[in-house]
Amino acid sequence: MNTSIIKNTLGIILRMYALLMLLPAIVALIYRESAIGFLIPFVLTLLLSFLLANKKADDGRIFAREGLVIVALAWILISAIGALPFVISGSIPHYIDAFFETVSGFTTTGSSVVPNVELMPRSDLFWRAFSHWIGGMGVLVFAFAILSLSNEHSMHIMRAEVPGITVGKLVPKTKSTARILYIIYLVLTLVQTAMLMLGGLNLYDALLHSFATAGTGGFSNYASSVGHFDSVYVEMVCSVFMLIFSINFSLFFLVLIGQPLQALKNRELRCFAIIVSSATLAIALGIWQTYGSFFTALRHAFFNVSSVISTTGFCTVDFNTWPEFTKWILLLLMFCGACAGSTGGGLKISRLMVLAKAAVCEIRHVAHPRSVNRVRLEGKVLSNDSVHDVLAFFLMYISLMLMFAFIISFDGFDIETTFTAALTCISNVGPGFGLVGPTGNFAIFSPLSKLALSFAMLLGRLEIYPLIVLLSRNTWKH
Amino acid sequence: MNTSIIKNTLGIILRMYALLMLLPAIVALIYRESAIGFLIPFVLTLLLSFLLANKKADDGRIFAREGLVIVALAWILISAIGALPFVISGSIPHYIDAFFETVSGFTTTGSSVVPNVELMPRSDLFWRAFSHWIGGMGVLVFAFAILSLSNEHSMHIMRAEVPGITVGKLVPKTKSTARILYIIYLVLTLVQTAMLMLGGLNLYDALLHSFATAGTGGFSNYASSVGHFDSVYVEMVCSVFMLIFSINFSLFFLVLIGQPLQALKNRELRCFAIIVSSATLAIALGIWQTYGSFFTALRHAFFNVSSVISTTGFCTVDFNTWPEFTKWILLLLMFCGACAGSTGGGLKISRLMVLAKAAVCEIRHVAHPRSVNRVRLEGKVLSNDSVHDVLAFFLMYISLMLMFAFIISFDGFDIETTFTAALTCISNVGPGFGLVGPTGNFAIFSPLSKLALSFAMLLGRLEIYPLIVLLSRNTWKH
Repeated sequence: MNTSIIKNTLGIILRMYALLMLLPAIVALIYRESAIGFLIPFVLTLLLSFLLANKKADDGRIFAREGLVIVALAWILISAIGALPFVISGSIPHYIDAFFETVSGFTTTGSSVVPNVELMPRSDLFWRAFSHWIGGMGVLVFAFAILSLSNEHSMHIMRAEVPGITVGKLVPKTKSTARILYIIYLVLTLVQTAMLMLGGLNLYDALLHSFATAGTGGFSNYASSVGHFDSVYVEMVCSVFMLIFSINFSLFFLVLIGQPLQALKNRELRCFAIIVSSATLAIALGIWQTYGSFFTALRHAFFNVSSVISTTGFCTVDFNTWPEFTKWILLLLMFCGACAGSTGGGLKISRLMVLAKAAVCEIRHVAHPRSVNRVRLEGKVLSNDSVHDVLAFFLMYISLMLMFAFIISFDGFDIETTFTAALTCISNVGPGFGLVGPTGNFAIFSPLSKLALSFAMLLGRLEIYPLIVLLSRNTWKH
Repeated sequence: MNTSIIKNTLGIILRMYALLMLLPAIVALIYRESAIGFLIPFVLTLLLSFLLANKKADDGRIFAREGLVIVALAWILISAIGALPFVISGSIPHYIDAFFETVSGFTTTGSSVVPNVELMPRSDLFWRAFSHWIGGMGVLVFAFAILSLSNEHSMHIMRAEVPGITVGKLVPKTKSTARILYIIYLVLTLVQTAMLMLGGLNLYDALLHSFATAGTGGFSNYASSVGHFDSVYVEMVCSVFMLIFSINFSLFFLVLIGQPLQALKNRELRCFAIIVSSATLAIALGIWQTYGSFFTALRHAFFNVSSVISTTGFCTVDFNTWPEFTKWILLLLMFCGACAGSTGGGLKISRLMVLAKAAVCEIRHVAHPRSVNRVRLEGKVLSNDSVHDVLAFFLMYISLMLMFAFIISFDGFDIETTFTAALTCISNVGPGFGLVGPTGNFAIFSPLSKLALSFAMLLGRLEIYPLIVLLSRNTWKH
């Protein structure tokens, strides 16, 4: 294990992170709130960063193992530090609660333990939403930070962190790839902010909701979430942008270089579109009676399908009260998640496509043991190893979800609450059903459960392996 | 597709099945009930059997595809015919209800739609429990039936039907293997019957509960199931035999040929023992307060753990009222299931062992991409293909369970009921939680849901593939 490069990289990441903490401090000054909650962690982070990166690494090589450990440690450190402002300002007095909230922010989950967010200082609310934005494209932030190392092996870090099964190198150099994705992310966020302002939102509200959308996080500064604005326009803007941020970012690159048709040919995108539209239609039919008019039903169905499949978790209505089968559709969408290479969580559409095809191949193989069946994705034949990886990922995902459900079951809540709390956390969605539904809250859980669910959110966000590798004894053996 | 051999084999199976129907007819005569409900299907089955097997097959070859189709059709036919006695006697007036009950019997599930079983004729109750016994070792019945074809390829049918991942040929000839297993099954059933009679049960009750235990089914002729006897001795006998019938039958063969130590070295058995004892202890601690004494808690914990992990589903108390984490333990045991090569259902312990090891290998592979990691089971290295098969099976199992939960969610019951109803049916356990808990009943579901759950039970019992191959278009293409 090359610990010197790990320390060095973490140091560089923390230096960037410290700078990001100045932004909420500025917000605090603007709103005449105390900025001390951000300045203390700012100084701490800087100190820590210099301690870690005090000398050049003896050996610049990063292999898979180091990459995974860096990613895991970075997310834990950033969350641990990011919780301090809430504790210092007193808006979330207990550290474990603040840690849960911050992990929920950086992992772009959006599950909250704050009973009434509207009582929080504006700078804290900004920090909460901003953590989604940082986390959502943590991928790029990290890749970008790593590039200053001018390291050939930085793709290992990308691979550990980019959601989905493949990291398509858009351009030959990793550095340029990261920069392009980063700019797309920034521009899309600003476009959404502008569009929300056109809908009557002030800059602060528009910015916070755009941050939460871009990261597919879901923290709102209003207790009733996007429902607060009660505006079809605002809901539509949010829905469309939630879907946009669920798409593989390399497709935007194709559009940028003038190949939009090529992007539309993407199978994962088509599959995503089919799932979104059929789920919306089915739910709209299911809740038609509840809302009286088909248009209203369609509006709520579209918003909530977009919110859940993108793993954002914004709310407009309490889907806990909807007919059971529509709740099951949302529950299945929680497993499903967004496209690979987006800021969304869940299993990812491309993985589901591979799984579906692997199942068909397996059935053919059972019926005709001698036949050879290959899984294809986007026109390419996948190697057996790739299919195996996806199957193993599915196994880990389901087993870990059940394990977390079991751990939090000691708190004694019903199966619906326990099951969906574990699911929504590992899929980075936000709300679940039962007591953790849109009107509910994760404050009901014990500190131990909150830590377990924080771990579940991190596992989901980092696609499971970095944290497990970090914690496995083998990693630290000489 | 060799349809002539399919017809022929089905004909032979039905001829044996017709004979088995005479047994409940005799019971009807003994208790002076009408035997007409069994005689009509008896005649029908015989007629059908002669229609199907009216001439020798032109081509004696059975390949995987034919084997799977035979198994799937046989189970569907047998269930469809087996439902008739209930309809004719009027004890279950609606055919779909009777079909559900019969499928639940033959698949050794034990989920019931009968609100008060104590009102049913004694011959019908006998038939219900006897269907568990036939189904539980359907494996052997079929293998045995097939042997009269003296066909080299009969292993294909065994493979399609024997639960678990491998069919260990105990002795060189399939015929002898089947006969040995069949005798072990019969002897164990009779031993249990005798032991239950020693506990004060009459022959009828003892026989019915032994049938239900041997098949790991769970139908009792009392509404309060084994709890009716309120006897620690009876519960212990049932618990121990439920566990015995959850063990791989080839281990009994090892004991028979004087190698009991060899049997005890079996890893799956050890793993099973560890799971049973730790689950029992954890639940006993959890319900200690509920029952006041630790002994009572241990008694209920042991019985219900044995009942659920063996996928029998006998009840003594309403575990729906237990603390949530103990319910989660039972829920996880429902996934888990019994050992491979037993009459139990679920994913099977050996599969879980392969899955756990595959997960560890995958983590190692992610951390060290160039390392080679192999999954071992019972001291043997598994091929990548075998591991792939188990991973694919897990995928199909979970996806189908969620699919069935979604289908029955249209009936509008809560997530707990819907989720555990689908789980308990595909795992062939019997009771679930919520409205389908130990005191609940599957009568609440709509006819469509009952059909769907019947299909789930068949899928679970036949290890998924036979039914899917039967229904796939490819199978019937020339």
